[in-house]
Amino acid sequence: MKRIAIVGLGLIGGSLGLRIRALGLGRVLGIDEVDQVAQRALERGAADETTRDLGGVAEADIVIVAVPLERTIAVAREVAGRARQGTIITDVASVKAPIVAALEGLSGVRYVGGHPMFGTAGRGIEEAGGDLPAGQPYVVTPTADTDEEALQTLVQLIRDLGMRPALLSPEEHDRAAAEVSHLPYLLALLLSAAAGPEAREIAGPAFRDATRVAQSPPDLWAEIIKQNRQPVLAALDRFGEGLTRMREALARGHIQWVVRAR
Amino acid sequence: MKRIAIVGLGLIGGSLGLRIRALGLGRVLGIDEVDQVAQRALERGAADETTRDLGGVAEADIVIVAVPLERTIAVAREVAGRARQGTIITDVASVKAPIVAALEGLSGVRYVGGHPMFGTAGRGIEEAGGDLPAGQPYVVTPTADTDEEALQTLVQLIRDLGMRPALLSPEEHDRAAAEVSHLPYLLALLLSAAAGPEAREIAGPAFRDATRVAQSPPDLWAEIIKQNRQPVLAALDRFGEGLTRMREALARGHIQWVVRAR
Repeated sequence: MKRIAIVGLGLIGGSLGLRIRALGLGRVLGIDEVDQVAQRALERGAADETTRDLGGVAEADIVIVAVPLERTIAVAREVAGRARQGTIITDVASVKAPIVAALEGLSGVRYVGGHPMFGTAGRGIEEAGGDLPAGQPYVVTPTADTDEEALQTLVQLIRDLGMRPALLSPEEHDRAAAEVSHLPYLLALLLSAAAGPEAREIAGPAFRDATRVAQSPPDLWAEIIKQNRQPVLAALDRFGEGLTRMREALARGHIQWVVRAR
Repeated sequence: MKRIAIVGLGLIGGSLGLRIRALGLGRVLGIDEVDQVAQRALERGAADETTRDLGGVAEADIVIVAVPLERTIAVAREVAGRARQGTIITDVASVKAPIVAALEGLSGVRYVGGHPMFGTAGRGIEEAGGDLPAGQPYVVTPTADTDEEALQTLVQLIRDLGMRPALLSPEEHDRAAAEVSHLPYLLALLLSAAAGPEAREIAGPAFRDATRVAQSPPDLWAEIIKQNRQPVLAALDRFGEGLTRMREALARGHIQWVVRAR
């Protein structure tokens, strides 16, 4: 049975732990610097055992670094210094190019970047859940330097989790994530901020769907957007151009173009 | 027991019929020019009896005109010509100012504009449903010419339906609807059209939430946007200004402003 260490028992780390254990895919060592979080992860069944000692990664075949984005590089480096030779290390950060560039040269371990697309509505171990719709995407971002066997092991683990591995370059991931995640978040913020009191009073399900993500933690998003600034700017620019074309078409009365052609 | 005629047994008319009957609020005469639709409404329990003869409205205390937006004015006028003196007539159209302006002078009947906020994901009697989250808004748009008793009767019916009456002027409704419904639809179209193949491959729940409404029937939306063009243009302009400010803040690295202040 594989020994899997999960460093950081928040929403993502906790959810992966719950699912790995529920499906019997490995023995999970949960590592978190906050004792109370580790305790709750244990109680909720997200780990077989827990510790606050990062040295625990020396026991693992695979280490999943699931700490907040801004700490991913530092923690992954520390993990690499304590893991056995050849240990597979992956992370779950929402932005990949800067993380992969910093980590793919780690010596002694085999790093593969990853990003499970769980959604971002909550945070913390209490929000973690082992249930996922089948086939949720889990992006893996190999490069020319990635160890092939480590990549295959991670891809197989993702399949065993019932998720769908999507292999993209780090840059492709960041561009795609800007389009389907970071841009929709920013639009939801604007939509939500622009709605006046009468608008809020009559808001129906479409508005709630369109603005739900605006409720998620702003500091978490600030870091994502900071790290992925150029792709987000490019996505905002393309969206702004589309908006301008749509506005002009509407002003000229080309309604069918607005709702169909674009 | 109130006799309520529903003209047009599509998603909205059918859903209102199902709910009125499930809650025992009245006897429902369903009127639809398509026999098959009327038959299905009867089978599904959305009406006590059905006819294709608009003359049936002569039996009703309240007539709900639930035909497509572009036919609302013509059908409501015909209903007024066949209803008894003092009959309450309401419509469910998604745009109110042009409809109310055309109908509030109808002689012999008492017209009150309305718009139940059911969402717009489907269409037709097969998509109709009597279940609604409690407190869904149902906009009522009285003017200085509206009969007070007719207004109170409609408001009470809405409360009895378990919905929340929201009284707005027709213009306030149209501005608010542009902000919470028509603009989100247009943004969803743009978002959906802009996402490339890699983006679609990794799209998670936030993207699906943000683009769900883009799946709804374009011809239905074309009519809404055509009828509500000026408020929609104004909402697009305000949104575009917000987008530009956000883009500039991001380009300058003011990330906290982007995610918080706006």
